[in-house]
Amino acid sequence: MPQYNAPLRDLRFVLHEVFQASQLWSRLPALAECVDTDTADAILEEAAKVTGQLIAPLNRSGDEEGAQWLAGAVTTPQGFREAYATYIQSGWVGLSGNPQYGGMGMPKMLAVAFEEMLYAAGSSFALYSALSSGACLAIDAHASEELKNTYLPPMYEGRWAGAMCLTEAHSGTDLGLIRTRAEPQADGSYKVSGSKIFITGGEQDLTENIIHLVLAKLPDAPAGPKGISLFLVPKIKVNADGSLGERNAVNCGSIEHKMGIKASATCVMNFDGATGYLVGELNKGLAAMFTMMNYERLSIGIQGIGCAEASYQNAVAYARERLQSRAPGGPVAADKAADPIIVHPDVRRMLLTIKAMTEGGRAFACYVGQQLDQAKFSEDSEERSRAEAQVALLTPVAKAFFTDTGLDSCVHGQQVFGGHGYIREWGQEQLVRDVRIAQIYEGTNGIQALDLLGRKVAANGGASLACFCAEMEAWAARGGLYAGELQEAVQRLREVSAWVLEQARSNPNEIGAASVEYLHLFGYTAYAYMWARMADCAAARRAGDEAFYAGKLASAEFFFRRLLPRTLGLEACIRGGSAALFGHTAEQL
Amino acid sequence: MPQYNAPLRDLRFVLHEVFQASQLWSRLPALAECVDTDTADAILEEAAKVTGQLIAPLNRSGDEEGAQWLAGAVTTPQGFREAYATYIQSGWVGLSGNPQYGGMGMPKMLAVAFEEMLYAAGSSFALYSALSSGACLAIDAHASEELKNTYLPPMYEGRWAGAMCLTEAHSGTDLGLIRTRAEPQADGSYKVSGSKIFITGGEQDLTENIIHLVLAKLPDAPAGPKGISLFLVPKIKVNADGSLGERNAVNCGSIEHKMGIKASATCVMNFDGATGYLVGELNKGLAAMFTMMNYERLSIGIQGIGCAEASYQNAVAYARERLQSRAPGGPVAADKAADPIIVHPDVRRMLLTIKAMTEGGRAFACYVGQQLDQAKFSEDSEERSRAEAQVALLTPVAKAFFTDTGLDSCVHGQQVFGGHGYIREWGQEQLVRDVRIAQIYEGTNGIQALDLLGRKVAANGGASLACFCAEMEAWAARGGLYAGELQEAVQRLREVSAWVLEQARSNPNEIGAASVEYLHLFGYTAYAYMWARMADCAAARRAGDEAFYAGKLASAEFFFRRLLPRTLGLEACIRGGSAALFGHTAEQL
Repeated sequence: MPQYNAPLRDLRFVLHEVFQASQLWSRLPALAECVDTDTADAILEEAAKVTGQLIAPLNRSGDEEGAQWLAGAVTTPQGFREAYATYIQSGWVGLSGNPQYGGMGMPKMLAVAFEEMLYAAGSSFALYSALSSGACLAIDAHASEELKNTYLPPMYEGRWAGAMCLTEAHSGTDLGLIRTRAEPQADGSYKVSGSKIFITGGEQDLTENIIHLVLAKLPDAPAGPKGISLFLVPKIKVNADGSLGERNAVNCGSIEHKMGIKASATCVMNFDGATGYLVGELNKGLAAMFTMMNYERLSIGIQGIGCAEASYQNAVAYARERLQSRAPGGPVAADKAADPIIVHPDVRRMLLTIKAMTEGGRAFACYVGQQLDQAKFSEDSEERSRAEAQVALLTPVAKAFFTDTGLDSCVHGQQVFGGHGYIREWGQEQLVRDVRIAQIYEGTNGIQALDLLGRKVAANGGASLACFCAEMEAWAARGGLYAGELQEAVQRLREVSAWVLEQARSNPNEIGAASVEYLHLFGYTAYAYMWARMADCAAARRAGDEAFYAGKLASAEFFFRRLLPRTLGLEACIRGGSAALFGHTAEQL
Repeated sequence: MPQYNAPLRDLRFVLHEVFQASQLWSRLPALAECVDTDTADAILEEAAKVTGQLIAPLNRSGDEEGAQWLAGAVTTPQGFREAYATYIQSGWVGLSGNPQYGGMGMPKMLAVAFEEMLYAAGSSFALYSALSSGACLAIDAHASEELKNTYLPPMYEGRWAGAMCLTEAHSGTDLGLIRTRAEPQADGSYKVSGSKIFITGGEQDLTENIIHLVLAKLPDAPAGPKGISLFLVPKIKVNADGSLGERNAVNCGSIEHKMGIKASATCVMNFDGATGYLVGELNKGLAAMFTMMNYERLSIGIQGIGCAEASYQNAVAYARERLQSRAPGGPVAADKAADPIIVHPDVRRMLLTIKAMTEGGRAFACYVGQQLDQAKFSEDSEERSRAEAQVALLTPVAKAFFTDTGLDSCVHGQQVFGGHGYIREWGQEQLVRDVRIAQIYEGTNGIQALDLLGRKVAANGGASLACFCAEMEAWAARGGLYAGELQEAVQRLREVSAWVLEQARSNPNEIGAASVEYLHLFGYTAYAYMWARMADCAAARRAGDEAFYAGKLASAEFFFRRLLPRTLGLEACIRGGSAALFGHTAEQL
C-alpha cells in the first residue's frame, strides 16, 4: 500500500540551486571529467526509477517474510534476488567508487541523493549494497594493489558483496576488547579465528561471493585498541586468475530476530582458521576502519532522512484523503461529511515538522557531501585540510541528528494515521522499526555525540567549531533572510560550547553529560544555516517556479518559528551540568 | 530474559508518604469501611506476585506467538488461558468495582498502582481485563438496575469480559460519522447492525462471555454526535436466571496485524441484527461514554508508566553488568577488562531520564487517582465538584504525557542496550512497540492536547487551570525544596496559557497549533509539583531509610536541573504561533 516517489525536484534544488554543485565539479579535474549537471540529473532520474519501481515494492513483503537461516545458508525474501540482479546492472554499487578499479567516480554530493532514495525505498534492501560500498572504500584506501585489483572490480559490479566484521558479543563500542585472532602464515596470509556478531549481510543469497573485512589481533599484539589489525577474508577463496576457488572457513552460525530491517540478514559469523589478507598496516586496523567511517557514517545517517521522507509521503497523502472532524475555523470541505485532516493545526504541525527536518537534513547531507568531495578531490592542500576538518566535525552530527530526528519523524508520520498507523499493512510502523536501528549501529548516537564534543570540539580547543561558526556567521552577515535568527543561533552554540569546555577543564564527566543535547543543539543550528541558505535561494529564484519556491519559504518560516526555538530548552538542560547525573549511588539507580 | 519486579517501595512511598492516602480514606465512609494502610499493602504485595510471577513470564512468548484468528474464533497465546483463570480468582478485575454488584470498592489511588504493575508485566495481557473494568464503569454509571444485576457480577469476577465498540473504518476521532444502526424492537430491546474496527478483546478464548458496549444510531436519530446511543450487546445472550443462552449475532471478522501488543486481539466486529440493550438515554451515548473516559484514560496513560518502568528495570540491570570502555575520570572497575557502562555520563543521563519521568508520572497518577476518589466518594458537594474539575483538567495531561514520555523512556531503555536492544529476545524493543499504541488509542495524544487546551483550559477562560496553579503556588509558598523552581515553572505555565488564550480570541487555529507543546509544558510543570512534594517528603523522612530517601532527593535534583528546563524550549515554540502552520497550500505540503 505505501508508495515511494523520489523527491527529484527537491534533490535538484539542493544540489544545483542551493549548493551549485557544478561549480565545484567543473573546477576539480577528477570530477570534471565524469559529471556535470545533465549527467547528474540523468543519474538521479534513473535512481528514482530503480528505487521507486524495483526496490520499494519489495519493502512490505520483505518485512513480513524476513531473511531466513537454515543450516548456515541465508535466504532473502521473495523478489530480492531478481531485484538485486537488475539493480546491480547499472553499476549503482560502484557509484562513487574508484574508476581505476571499475567504479563510476561520482561525487559524494550526488551519492548522498542516491543513498537517500535507496533507504527510503527499503532499508533492508539498501543495506546489502551499502556495506559493499563501505568495504570497497576501506579496501581502496588501505589494501595492497593486488588485493584492490582482485576484489574491487567485482565488488563495484555488485557481483561480490562486502561485509564489515567488527563487533563481538562482549565487544561493541569498546573494540579494544575483541578476541578474534589472526595467525601469520608462511605465505604472507593469515588464519583468522573468532566469532563476530551483528554482521549485516554476513551471509546472503544475492552475490557470488562475500568479502569480509574483519578486525582481529595477532597473537603477540599489544593489548587494547592499539593491537587491532584489519583483514580481508573472502567467503569463497579467489584464484590467481580472479575465478572462484574453494570455500573458506567462514560460516554463518545464525541470524538475529530483530525489531526491524527484517529482510536484512544480521549474522553471527564464525571464522575457523579462515584464510585472510592484511589490509593496511599491522596493529593499525582501527585507523584503517576510521578512514572510511566518515564516509560511511554519513550514509548511515541518511537512512534517517530516507525513512523520514518515505513516512512523510505516506502521511501527507493520508492527511489529504482522510475525512475527520471540521477545521477549527469552520468547514473547508462543506460538501463532505468531514474535512480532510490536513486542515487541522496539529496534523499540519506533525507534517511540517517532518518536512522541515527532512529537507534541512537533505541539505546538510549534500553540504557534508560537498566537503567530502573537496577533501577527496581538491588539488589544493589547504582546501583539502579545511574540508577534512569540517567533515570530521560534521559527520557525527549528520549521523546522529539525521537518525534521531528520523525516528521522531517516522513516529509523527505514524501518528498522522491514528489507529491505522499501528497496523502493519499501511507501512508506517515498519518505518519506525526500520529507522530505529540507525540510531544504534555504526556507533550509537551517544557515541557520535561523545565523538563530536570530545574529539572534534574539545580536543582541538574548539578550533574546528570556530571555523564552522565563522562560516555560518559570514553567511548571516550577508543580511539575507533569517540572518538575525541564524546569527543568534550561532552565538548560542558558541556560548554553550565555551561553557562546556570551561566546565570540562575541571570535570571529566562534563563532556559526556552534555554531549547528546549538545549534538542536538549543534544540529538545529546547522539546519538554521541550511534553511537560511535555502530561503535565500528560493527567494532569488521565485519568479521561475512560484509555487515550489513559495513552499520552500513557508517551510523555512516554520523551521525558524516552531523548531529552532527548541535550542533554548537544549541550552538550559546542558547548563544543568553533570553533577545531577552523579548524585545516586549505583544501588540507588 | 527480561524480568519484572514491582517497585513496591516506590509505590508505597507515593501512596502512603507523599499523599498520605489513609487520611483521605479514613474520612470518606465508603472507603473507610474497606481499605486502610495494611489492606492496601497486602493488596500491593499480592499484585506484585501475580504480575511478576504469573503475567510477566508470558510477555515475550505472547509477543512471538501473537493472538490467532481462525474462522471467527480467536486463540490467545499459550499460557494465557491458564494465567487468566488464576488471575481472576483474586478479584482483580473488580478491584475498584461497585461493591453492590460484587466489586471490591477499592480507591483509584490504589488501583492505579495495580494498573501500573499490570501494564509493566504485559500490555497485551493487561488489556483483556482493562477493557472489562472500563465497560463495568459505564454499565455501573448508566445502565438500568436490571442490566447491572445481570452483567456486573460476572464481569467483576472476570468470568465475562467487556469490550468497547466505538470506531468504524471511516470514523475514529469523529464519532459523529458512525453508521452502525440500532432498530427498536417490541420487547424494548434493539437490533444492532454494523461493523466496528480496532476492538480490543472483541473476541478471545479467555472468558465465557463478552459484553460489547456499542455506539450506534437509531434510524431517526439526529445527525452527528447528538444522535449516538450506547448499547450493551452480549456475545452470548443471557437468560433471565443469568445463565448463558444462545449465541448473539456478533462475529469477529478478522484481527489486525500490528506493530505491537500482538497477544492482544484487535478485532473487526460485525453486528448483524444482534440483540442489544440501551445503556443510559437515547442519543446521549457519547455523554455516557465520556463519564467513564476520565477513569479509563488515566488507566491507559498508565500503560506508559508501566512500560517505562519495565524498560528501566532491564536497562539498569544491563548497565550494571555490561562492561565497555572506561569512565571519563579513569577506571572504576580496574580489575575488569572495562567498566560497567553505568559509569558513563550519557548512560546515566538516559537511565535517570527514564527514572525521573517514571517516578514523576507515578506520583501524578496517584495524585489524579486521589482527585478521582474525592470526586466519587466525598460526601461534601463542594469537594466533589472541585475534584471533578481537577480531574477533567488533569486527565488529558496524564493520558498523553505518560504515554509520550513512556515512548521516550522505552526508546532510552532500548538504547542503553546498544545493538542488543534491537534484538527481540532482550525484550526492550517489544516495550517500544507495545507502548507506542498508548499514544494512539483511547483518543490520540493530539486529541488529548486539544481536549486540554480547548475544552479544559480555554472553554472556562482558564478557571480550572487557575485553580490548579493556585494549588501549586500554595505548595511553593511553603518554601520547601525547589520552591523557587516550582514557582517559576507555574508562572511560566500561567503566562503561556494567558498568551495562547489571548491569541485564540482572534484566531481559531491557535489552540490546535499550541496544544501538543502546551500539554508537554503543563506535564513538566505538574511533575515539578510532584517532585517538589516528593523531595520535601524524602527530606523529612530521611532518618528512617537513608539510602532510599537520598536516592529520591538525587532524582529530584536531576529532574529540576536536567529535565524541567525543557519548558523553555516548549514555551518558545508555542510562542512561534499558528501562522507558520498555514503558510503552505495543500499542494505545497
